[in-house]
Amino acid sequence: MKKVSVGILGLGTVGGGTFEVLRQNKELIEKRLGAHLEIKAIATRTPSRAASWNCPSELVSNNPDLVLNDPEIDIVAELIGGIEPARDFVLRALRSGKSVVTANKELLAKHGPLLRQVADENSVDLLFEGAVGGGIPLIKPLRESLAGNRIEEVLAILNGTTNFILSKMTREGADYHAVLAEAQALGYAEAEPSSDVDGFDTQYKLAIVAGIAFDTPVDLDDIFREGITKVSARDIEYAAELGYAIKLVALARRAESSALEMRVHPALLPHSHPLASVGDAFNAIWVRGDAVGETMFYGRGAGAHPTGSAVVGDLIEAARNRLRGIRNIDHAPEHKAVMLPFDEAQTRFCVRMQVKDRPGAIAQIAGVLGDSGVSIESIVQKKTEHGEAEIFWMTHDTTQSAMDQSLKGFAQLEVVREVSSVLRVEGE
Amino acid sequence: MKKVSVGILGLGTVGGGTFEVLRQNKELIEKRLGAHLEIKAIATRTPSRAASWNCPSELVSNNPDLVLNDPEIDIVAELIGGIEPARDFVLRALRSGKSVVTANKELLAKHGPLLRQVADENSVDLLFEGAVGGGIPLIKPLRESLAGNRIEEVLAILNGTTNFILSKMTREGADYHAVLAEAQALGYAEAEPSSDVDGFDTQYKLAIVAGIAFDTPVDLDDIFREGITKVSARDIEYAAELGYAIKLVALARRAESSALEMRVHPALLPHSHPLASVGDAFNAIWVRGDAVGETMFYGRGAGAHPTGSAVVGDLIEAARNRLRGIRNIDHAPEHKAVMLPFDEAQTRFCVRMQVKDRPGAIAQIAGVLGDSGVSIESIVQKKTEHGEAEIFWMTHDTTQSAMDQSLKGFAQLEVVREVSSVLRVEGE
Repeated sequence: MKKVSVGILGLGTVGGGTFEVLRQNKELIEKRLGAHLEIKAIATRTPSRAASWNCPSELVSNNPDLVLNDPEIDIVAELIGGIEPARDFVLRALRSGKSVVTANKELLAKHGPLLRQVADENSVDLLFEGAVGGGIPLIKPLRESLAGNRIEEVLAILNGTTNFILSKMTREGADYHAVLAEAQALGYAEAEPSSDVDGFDTQYKLAIVAGIAFDTPVDLDDIFREGITKVSARDIEYAAELGYAIKLVALARRAESSALEMRVHPALLPHSHPLASVGDAFNAIWVRGDAVGETMFYGRGAGAHPTGSAVVGDLIEAARNRLRGIRNIDHAPEHKAVMLPFDEAQTRFCVRMQVKDRPGAIAQIAGVLGDSGVSIESIVQKKTEHGEAEIFWMTHDTTQSAMDQSLKGFAQLEVVREVSSVLRVEGE
Repeated sequence: MKKVSVGILGLGTVGGGTFEVLRQNKELIEKRLGAHLEIKAIATRTPSRAASWNCPSELVSNNPDLVLNDPEIDIVAELIGGIEPARDFVLRALRSGKSVVTANKELLAKHGPLLRQVADENSVDLLFEGAVGGGIPLIKPLRESLAGNRIEEVLAILNGTTNFILSKMTREGADYHAVLAEAQALGYAEAEPSSDVDGFDTQYKLAIVAGIAFDTPVDLDDIFREGITKVSARDIEYAAELGYAIKLVALARRAESSALEMRVHPALLPHSHPLASVGDAFNAIWVRGDAVGETMFYGRGAGAHPTGSAVVGDLIEAARNRLRGIRNIDHAPEHKAVMLPFDEAQTRFCVRMQVKDRPGAIAQIAGVLGDSGVSIESIVQKKTEHGEAEIFWMTHDTTQSAMDQSLKGFAQLEVVREVSSVLRVEGE
């Protein structure tokens, strides 16, 4: 039987999970591949971690050159994360004719075009199923199975930490900070949670997915980003009353003008939408194509073995390609798609505000909305304390600029004490 | 730009949908493929249908030889359905060195091994994403993206007609026959509905999916099959009270002994299971792998454009392979998996029965269950008319043989007037 040799860079959660999946299912994998798939070397900054993955210590060193400079290694799995030294290592591997499998969303989102070009120049594979949605088959189905479709919209939950936090807030009526602290104590959220809760992680993943779905290079700046730190238990409660769940969504959509809009932010999703019931640390990506209609992929978006599953799937593909002397054909997009100016983005909004409980208050608010061309679909009012009422209202479809104009108008109204939250409504 | 030529056999729903998707997204598809994808000839028994798909009449004939004997045609899409003449046409195409794309689940379920062998012998592709789950990417993700997994279980809703009927029965509290008649009037169900409602269609699809998931040839006889014709509005109502939805499920699972069990039947699924909320004509397949954990694929399981999407995805893949002079590697399973004897299948059951409303009735029933080694998890009793009560109870995990023994025991009890339904519980 022929042999393909793999080197692994990084032995953290994903590196260790990948090692375990490869070891555990070795026989099955080699039968499916029709060849041996050998792990030849693993490099990590902390070789002492090898023991916790039951990884033979003779495979492990702290010297990446033992992976990158070994001419017998055909495929490198980069599972370090972050930009440097991962970027340097990936480029070195590609330039020395090795195929690369990576789960590094930040690297792909920031340097994808360069890596792709270098992979092209060296006629090797660059595969990254594990970078988005953990173990969920996503990149390959989108690129290959749905290749006959003009994709119209991608709406997704791509970050397990924030989905866990929002699910728990919903279930328990608890507030953001309390749930975050608990999630941190449980290891579901990092001590420094910004990458998750401010939406950076989701933004990286959306850049990768949207690039494939819409055949375009994507700059991170093209994607509006807002995190979940301002979502309150009150918002979730009102949303539920109206039949909606609040999720951190990644959205990429072709507007009527054909321009692309891309955003990451908390959004109300109607309970009838398949994404609305995606709970806890699960991820899901909902895709609408002109032929397939709506389709959705669901599963664990992170974790050692789920992400290891995706990395191993890519390793098998890269190995199969090397055995046949081919690589995946990946036609780089020739042109960048036109992006919709953020002001023109169309959506529905819902706003929670504290107003003075006096006659005419609602009329004044409605007047501002009317002047801005924003029309209201539904409104919930509750009396709160100290002569103030809390109102929560939802608009019909409107533009970002009309909404911004309304918010400026409210600032001039003496009856409006505070605009407590502004959220978007998607999935309808 | 290079060119790949396609011939289409059949211009019904799927053939027409495939033609439309290819025409509508021609430019996009050819950019992604990097070559022209030309429809060279279409054969159908009713060429008059060409007009309804806006299909140029010069492409269409009623002579399949114009597709099968044309040496310039590289790929044949078999979209006729049924066994003959589809089987003959597919074999002729494969033997003349053409790759074949088909959406014919019955043909694959009954003659898959032969077709696969002939494709192997002729070094051509045989692709069939459209045969299961309409447009949902399923076969490729299972075979390729999840190739690093030992699959433990597949639980799926694979028939849109029955899911539409059961969803409507659930929503409206209506009975099976009324909803079937309505579905027939709307064109959602065939005038001769047996293939759908008796579970044959689902059985064919499960045979295809389980063969891939578990690396084994599957005979249709290996799959227990029971349709939805006996599911009543009462069953659905009781199930809902206990927190379950009733769905026609396809199940393939590795038992503890490693033997495979495969069944198609109506089952109660807890509302918390992602399949439970798959409504109307949608399909979904839930897969549990040892590395990926649980994952699910969801979308439209039928229809011209959704199934066309899958067929076109396969045509693009087959075309790409031909341009590179390769074919998909598909290691045929060497051995057939051991099948679990049906008697030993483990599941939970729920039973609805009419009993005489007299002291000791429940005790007698419980006695029979105890003698058979079946233990009850929950029970709902409602008084009905004429001194009779209806009871609905659910067991803990038990075997088919213990359940059959209980049912025999009930037949001997004078207090049991009728066992109205016996259903299984899955997804817990």
